[in-house]
Amino acid sequence: MYIGVDYYPEQWPRERWETDLQMMKELGINVIRIAEFGWSLMEPEEGTFDFTLYDEAIKRMHSYGFDVVLGTPTATPPAWLIEKYPEVLPVDDHGHVISFGARRHYTVNSEVYQLLSKRIVTEMAKRYGQHPAVIGWQVDNEYGHEKSDRSYGDIDQTAFQSWLKEKYDSLDALNERWGTVFWSQTYTRWSQIPVPRKVYQEHNPSLLLDFDRFCAEMYNRYNRMQVEVLRTFIPERQFITHNFVYTGLAQDQKEMAKDLDFISFDNYPVWGGLADPISPAAIARQHDLCRGTKNGKGYWVMEELSGAQGWSQIGYNPRPGHLKLWTYQAISRGAEAIVYFRWRAARYGTEQFCHGILDHDGKPRRKYDEVKEVIDSLSGFADEWIASDYKADVAFYHDPENEWAWQIQPHSDQFEYVKEYLRFYEPAHSLNTQANIIRDDEDLSRYKVVVVPIYFLTKKRFNDQLKDYVKNGGTVVFSYRTGVKDEDNVVTEETLPGDLAEMCGIEVPEYESLRADKSSHVNGQAGVLEGLSSDGEVWSDYIETTTADVLATYEDSWFQDKAAITKNNYGQGTVYYIGSGVESAMIRKLYTSIFQEAGVRSSETPEKVELVWRESSDQTYLAVLNHDVEESHKISLPEGEWSENSTGNSYSGELMIPRLGSMVLVKQK
Amino acid sequence: MYIGVDYYPEQWPRERWETDLQMMKELGINVIRIAEFGWSLMEPEEGTFDFTLYDEAIKRMHSYGFDVVLGTPTATPPAWLIEKYPEVLPVDDHGHVISFGARRHYTVNSEVYQLLSKRIVTEMAKRYGQHPAVIGWQVDNEYGHEKSDRSYGDIDQTAFQSWLKEKYDSLDALNERWGTVFWSQTYTRWSQIPVPRKVYQEHNPSLLLDFDRFCAEMYNRYNRMQVEVLRTFIPERQFITHNFVYTGLAQDQKEMAKDLDFISFDNYPVWGGLADPISPAAIARQHDLCRGTKNGKGYWVMEELSGAQGWSQIGYNPRPGHLKLWTYQAISRGAEAIVYFRWRAARYGTEQFCHGILDHDGKPRRKYDEVKEVIDSLSGFADEWIASDYKADVAFYHDPENEWAWQIQPHSDQFEYVKEYLRFYEPAHSLNTQANIIRDDEDLSRYKVVVVPIYFLTKKRFNDQLKDYVKNGGTVVFSYRTGVKDEDNVVTEETLPGDLAEMCGIEVPEYESLRADKSSHVNGQAGVLEGLSSDGEVWSDYIETTTADVLATYEDSWFQDKAAITKNNYGQGTVYYIGSGVESAMIRKLYTSIFQEAGVRSSETPEKVELVWRESSDQTYLAVLNHDVEESHKISLPEGEWSENSTGNSYSGELMIPRLGSMVLVKQK
Amino acid sequence: MYIGVDYYPEQWPRERWETDLQMMKELGINVIRIAEFGWSLMEPEEGTFDFTLYDEAIKRMHSYGFDVVLGTPTATPPAWLIEKYPEVLPVDDHGHVISFGARRHYTVNSEVYQLLSKRIVTEMAKRYGQHPAVIGWQVDNEYGHEKSDRSYGDIDQTAFQSWLKEKYDSLDALNERWGTVFWSQTYTRWSQIPVPRKVYQEHNPSLLLDFDRFCAEMYNRYNRMQVEVLRTFIPERQFITHNFVYTGLAQDQKEMAKDLDFISFDNYPVWGGLADPISPAAIARQHDLCRGTKNGKGYWVMEELSGAQGWSQIGYNPRPGHLKLWTYQAISRGAEAIVYFRWRAARYGTEQFCHGILDHDGKPRRKYDEVKEVIDSLSGFADEWIASDYKADVAFYHDPENEWAWQIQPHSDQFEYVKEYLRFYEPAHSLNTQANIIRDDEDLSRYKVVVVPIYFLTKKRFNDQLKDYVKNGGTVVFSYRTGVKDEDNVVTEETLPGDLAEMCGIEVPEYESLRADKSSHVNGQAGVLEGLSSDGEVWSDYIETTTADVLATYEDSWFQDKAAITKNNYGQGTVYYIGSGVESAMIRKLYTSIFQEAGVRSSETPEKVELVWRESSDQTYLAVLNHDVEESHKISLPEGEWSENSTGNSYSGELMIPRLGSMVLVKQK
Repeated sequence: MYIGVDYYPEQWPRERWETDLQMMKELGINVIRIAEFGWSLMEPEEGTFDFTLYDEAIKRMHSYGFDVVLGTPTATPPAWLIEKYPEVLPVDDHGHVISFGARRHYTVNSEVYQLLSKRIVTEMAKRYGQHPAVIGWQVDNEYGHEKSDRSYGDIDQTAFQSWLKEKYDSLDALNERWGTVFWSQTYTRWSQIPVPRKVYQEHNPSLLLDFDRFCAEMYNRYNRMQVEVLRTFIPERQFITHNFVYTGLAQDQKEMAKDLDFISFDNYPVWGGLADPISPAAIARQHDLCRGTKNGKGYWVMEELSGAQGWSQIGYNPRPGHLKLWTYQAISRGAEAIVYFRWRAARYGTEQFCHGILDHDGKPRRKYDEVKEVIDSLSGFADEWIASDYKADVAFYHDPENEWAWQIQPHSDQFEYVKEYLRFYEPAHSLNTQANIIRDDEDLSRYKVVVVPIYFLTKKRFNDQLKDYVKNGGTVVFSYRTGVKDEDNVVTEETLPGDLAEMCGIEVPEYESLRADKSSHVNGQAGVLEGLSSDGEVWSDYIETTTADVLATYEDSWFQDKAAITKNNYGQGTVYYIGSGVESAMIRKLYTSIFQEAGVRSSETPEKVELVWRESSDQTYLAVLNHDVEESHKISLPEGEWSENSTGNSYSGELMIPRLGSMVLVKQK
Repeated sequence: MYIGVDYYPEQWPRERWETDLQMMKELGINVIRIAEFGWSLMEPEEGTFDFTLYDEAIKRMHSYGFDVVLGTPTATPPAWLIEKYPEVLPVDDHGHVISFGARRHYTVNSEVYQLLSKRIVTEMAKRYGQHPAVIGWQVDNEYGHEKSDRSYGDIDQTAFQSWLKEKYDSLDALNERWGTVFWSQTYTRWSQIPVPRKVYQEHNPSLLLDFDRFCAEMYNRYNRMQVEVLRTFIPERQFITHNFVYTGLAQDQKEMAKDLDFISFDNYPVWGGLADPISPAAIARQHDLCRGTKNGKGYWVMEELSGAQGWSQIGYNPRPGHLKLWTYQAISRGAEAIVYFRWRAARYGTEQFCHGILDHDGKPRRKYDEVKEVIDSLSGFADEWIASDYKADVAFYHDPENEWAWQIQPHSDQFEYVKEYLRFYEPAHSLNTQANIIRDDEDLSRYKVVVVPIYFLTKKRFNDQLKDYVKNGGTVVFSYRTGVKDEDNVVTEETLPGDLAEMCGIEVPEYESLRADKSSHVNGQAGVLEGLSSDGEVWSDYIETTTADVLATYEDSWFQDKAAITKNNYGQGTVYYIGSGVESAMIRKLYTSIFQEAGVRSSETPEKVELVWRESSDQTYLAVLNHDVEESHKISLPEGEWSENSTGNSYSGELMIPRLGSMVLVKQK
Repeated sequence: MYIGVDYYPEQWPRERWETDLQMMKELGINVIRIAEFGWSLMEPEEGTFDFTLYDEAIKRMHSYGFDVVLGTPTATPPAWLIEKYPEVLPVDDHGHVISFGARRHYTVNSEVYQLLSKRIVTEMAKRYGQHPAVIGWQVDNEYGHEKSDRSYGDIDQTAFQSWLKEKYDSLDALNERWGTVFWSQTYTRWSQIPVPRKVYQEHNPSLLLDFDRFCAEMYNRYNRMQVEVLRTFIPERQFITHNFVYTGLAQDQKEMAKDLDFISFDNYPVWGGLADPISPAAIARQHDLCRGTKNGKGYWVMEELSGAQGWSQIGYNPRPGHLKLWTYQAISRGAEAIVYFRWRAARYGTEQFCHGILDHDGKPRRKYDEVKEVIDSLSGFADEWIASDYKADVAFYHDPENEWAWQIQPHSDQFEYVKEYLRFYEPAHSLNTQANIIRDDEDLSRYKVVVVPIYFLTKKRFNDQLKDYVKNGGTVVFSYRTGVKDEDNVVTEETLPGDLAEMCGIEVPEYESLRADKSSHVNGQAGVLEGLSSDGEVWSDYIETTTADVLATYEDSWFQDKAAITKNNYGQGTVYYIGSGVESAMIRKLYTSIFQEAGVRSSETPEKVELVWRESSDQTYLAVLNHDVEESHKISLPEGEWSENSTGNSYSGELMIPRLGSMVLVKQK
């Protein structure tokens, strides 16, 4: 297994390199990522290349036996480039040109930039494609991060128009599908179509969704261009990856991943400006997204947080145990390599307060020791753990286009996409039920339950898959606002939930958006929900059943008789519909029963204690992860004798897991 | 009486038209507004006109016996127009050009746009001026809505300079009246005068007020141009109107109304982003503004909300009863026609979530039934009700220039113009006392009481009217910050309340702005206020009396002896001054006594129950409107036998009015 | 002593001048500041000068015996100037050009503007340099106020590049010191360096700090240019000053002051938008900054608030007593002249709601009477009081560059520079301990205690001074985040507190930024802190001691053993380190003991009662200032017989000081 660090040799005097490499060796790492912001060093002026520094750095790393991952440096076009080709700079939605002075200051739609990128990547690939120490490549860095996903300049507008022409072929088709007859927006020439710069009200949602698709696809093309250059010059043994962020950008990771050998992920459970880490479920969801991006294939964590992070604002300082905990969580959920960001905190530049394994003074202290503990504990064990399977009987549907559609029309000030997604994901996570996050390219019959949260923008193809799946005995869980839109971001003309109404056995003749100071009240009426009640946030679907059974209703003087949660038999299968943003406890209760009926494993543990199973042919692996910063918790181990590789200890029955404790237990089959 | 719908035939396939028209017929409507966003259909390229779609639509509507109102489509200049004449686009106060992509993306100051508008309106007028189904015209749509009232581009600057030259004739006069000697702003050429783009501090308030006047007047000229074109081609029987919004824009509805046959209003008691409807008094105030715009003349509600509204954020879903209640309220206060917005929710475009009588699925449900109930209940009765008089013994003064002056200098973060206006309007509304909202062009002697709230920007002419009125026995109620400014937005050099000090019998030597976390405490000292106390928000005038009596004082360790509310005899009349933002209950108590003394009818009803009287020569009409969403209320009917036309039921004595109930009762004289 | 008013003769009709001057005479003032916004009057068109109005005004003032201070009018370039030279307008960090229409609408980097400024100042100096009434000059007005300190246009960028070239000489040096290797920012031509316009993330902190230095220095050069012009034409007896604001702008008052005879200050303890005055300590800190700007030299208050202030929002109305109190506070802390802003409130322009001694109606009332009381009370006494010494045994360090560095990286949303500075200043102020605010150009041995709060950006030179000072017996108090940065805004590579670690006797291996909803808990462990506890905000340094003693520790399940406050013996002296943003009470307790040990006078008074001592050879002056708006307080006078000059009363033992009372007591030595 690869465990390594992100290192910036260019930021330190050469006399320090030996110290650092020596300390890394002692720490036990085996891989180093470098060079992803090194363009001005490699090409100090246009067309002049100088790889001296990286030659030397790689040579020394190689001499220590480290493998090297190289980043292409296109996230940071140098000053000379911007001075000479200022048209490369992106433009925001008010028309402000983004200045040189930080990073990601290019629009992917600039042809000049594409050419310049191609040249530097070609030179790098030629230089290091045959180097024995170089095992792979990271293309660029965190595409789209920090609002760099969308650019609104003239270059972008022209590219958008071309992209639309490719997609729709005729303006008639575009006008028809966008409904431009609304507000006299009919386009009679491609050149009339705007990028969504500032308007008095709001743009056409169909244009906005296509603009997001365009932005995502242009990044994919840009990435593909770099990948193709690399493939021309590098051998098979060198991999190509990119380090994704999953923050709702106009990026389509799954499409981009098709061009990559595997994907990578930058894992920051807390960052500048956050007073506390995000929830265990929120971290887990990101790992599940990673694992799902190439349909179950393992991925690298190319940046794993190793200290407090921040630019001008600094976030929470991870407590002792956090680094190991988050590393174990990552591996248990599919990461095959961990690269810590960063070896040592930078003394200058915007990221001065991104703390690393070492702080500014370069002295090993508790974070160094903790990473050492991780490495030691995994020694001789990691490979088999990684090789084992992550099995999931449940699937959660996620499509970035649906997320974009929600961003375009959030309905309520209470609505945040990730929060709402987690409303339906977290209860399953808290039951330690393993799930994959999928799109519409998987065989649903693999799964016993498919949860399709806030499925607002629908795809006919997936609707049909769901219908078949349920007809053949599957179980589907939908939530409020299912079935509203077609792929053009146009509202269905069928009664909601539209194309999915029949399988749900319901109609939604009325609904309501609830703002931050509003909530509904929902009472369970049948089955496991009987006697339970919950507030409902964000949205109320006031449901009438056609064939479904009512599981919960609204307590409301006007909508007293309307259903809030229903269950329908459809073909051989079952469909649930949760029409209100009810509380976690109610959803968890419902899931308990759904999972039980469907034969899905779930297990209650104390809040914040996460269990993750892996299976090999002869062993079961159980990661026990206590995310609680303050309290130890007792859990009941599944039957059998469990041993911990790193200590040799054996456990059965009850196990006390200390605060922020993390362990991997193994049981023979 | 006209009751109809806003319909967009261009947004639906022709095969649906028949279904829709059939359903409308069954519903019982008699008028349809169309075409106000149809420019790109009518003029698909510059100078080429095609009225096929609207020809066909009007023909079919006519065949069903519907009358048609046509909107001129200038709120939505087409894409080809903006591509060819980008100078038409407006500019915001930071210099950002507003993009094509929504609506109202033109500056009224563009001469090119004026010409292009003239041409399309000419063509429409020629086409439909003689059509038997067409009964009238709506010019453009909601002028100034969504910040489109003010544009800050170079074209606008030149027009502003010309407008100023017309107004002031000489720069000396402008310099003198604006006080440009302050901060060396003296202008020596007209071309030096800026539009109020971003500055480090704040612009000269006199310039700002004139800029608002300019913006309003340029819209009036633009509207007049369209009206003149229409009048050239249409017959007398076709009316011309415009659908106003009353949201504090730089618009002067009363001036514009002089060019219109009657005004129209778009009535949205709740919209996207509001968790609840605005208060009954706030809706009533807007109707009173409408009725006052042409000094009592009836108006159309050209858009009456018929479902939850919103763009990317959706508002409160009106409860069963709301549509009828708001319709009855509108008619009782002066609306002569109701056109529901919109027949059916659009499937595409920005307004996807503007719900209508029908939702996206086009099926009649409770909103359809409710509108039907409205129409049935008014059948054979509406005309006489509408023909009856709205009588008012009380007048409230409102001048948009005063509102603009407050927007320019709100004094406190607690101050919002409408909220403060309602502070003085709502207590009268809650006493069911009928009032007109007037400007300075009415004979005050018609009224027993004139309330002049937050009269900051004064007009000499109105001051003189007030003095005469009181001298002759009238009663006037002023509030804090009366008499501060002259028409140039310059502070008086008389002791406050300036020109009105003598009639108030007071001086205001000290005052204080109260921010959101500050309040005063006011104790009643005499008359009906004795024993009452109230917190005071927003502002404290620390009053010294000259001839007035003190009705209330401050409880304050420093201003203990200062008056907060006073009463003065002036000539034959009486003047009240309320120097603090006291609570509704105290003002209501004071009004009770003022109205009683002045012989004005008032009646207490449960909170949220509104009564509106109308009178004909032989009958009295009483609208009983329960705005309470949750509770029924008992009211005591005025003496006599009251009957309800729609049911034939008779009532006397006590009446239980259900939640959201609305009824019109009639009594023979 | 000079006591006067700010007057704008140009804003009033000449017939009013006599009334005003007569009233001023009766009030007892002796100096008037005029003309600082009079450019368009003096130069109504380019190159044409007309001093008629000011000639006449000065003549009349002279005839009344008033001395006159003239402002150069460059804060308000006239309309003709901007029309002809629009390149003079500044640009904000998004690229928006700041419009004409308010004030300070110039970039100091415009060479055209420098020339035009030079010309008007030359003409003024020639005109009034010999006038007997003119005693001095104020250059421009409030440099940098309201964000006018930083301009981001092309002119500014070129100037910034030149300035950097002067500073660094070679790009290699700049690249090295800024660490531009980070994110490929290496500059290969000076013309590549940006001004810090909008980027996706954040600019390099080293660039940002140099940009602030550049902005400050360019203002200093601009000021020096004006001073040099003046010196050429005016006699020695006329002083030159500038009225500073101390609000964290990119301004270096101390550097600028070197070119001035003395500095001036605009003293607004409350202004538009504030519901209450800032705290007594916050006002005192500003006076201490003033006094420190020229190392103890007295200064003028060129604008002393005399009424409620505000532009479109109006602030708190000062209560009776406030004017005298704030005047006495100013004089006691170093002001040698008081000029009240403004004689009378303006009727027009942006500052209509800046109230003065007179309000808009021009009638003398309580504020006039209160100023008269001030003048009478000081009559025949002020000069000796002013001539006496302000003695301070304690020094507080302040460097604007440190403040800028904090603005660039505030670490936490809880952090505001002034609030945090006051966290360490206010406890000393509340103990009535007199302190000077110093930079690194003073002999520290004058002081018994030196407090160095939030010393983030360090200077080697000052570090060395501190070390010497403590070695020789001095006492230093540091706070959290000491020693982090070098002068290039680069993080030290030593363990914190870096260069100061040895003298502190500690190391800070871990720390944490606390956001608004986070706090630590600190328990006193030794000395006066034993038994005390406090919450800690903003920041926690988790301290390990090397040679220091622990005074307080964290109550925290993870950092239980870490120190929060320490004390170290170093050489002959003592160093305290306060590693957490603890509460005022804990710091006051600690100071009590530190001051006692160091032999510094302190005395407890009721909260909000401030004592300020002055000393002459034979007398002690004690200003007693009760800032409490509601309550009188009893204080114990220092031993001896104290007399009040204005009343002739004598006091000893206990003294009752009424709310907002202020008095100066004198005791013979």
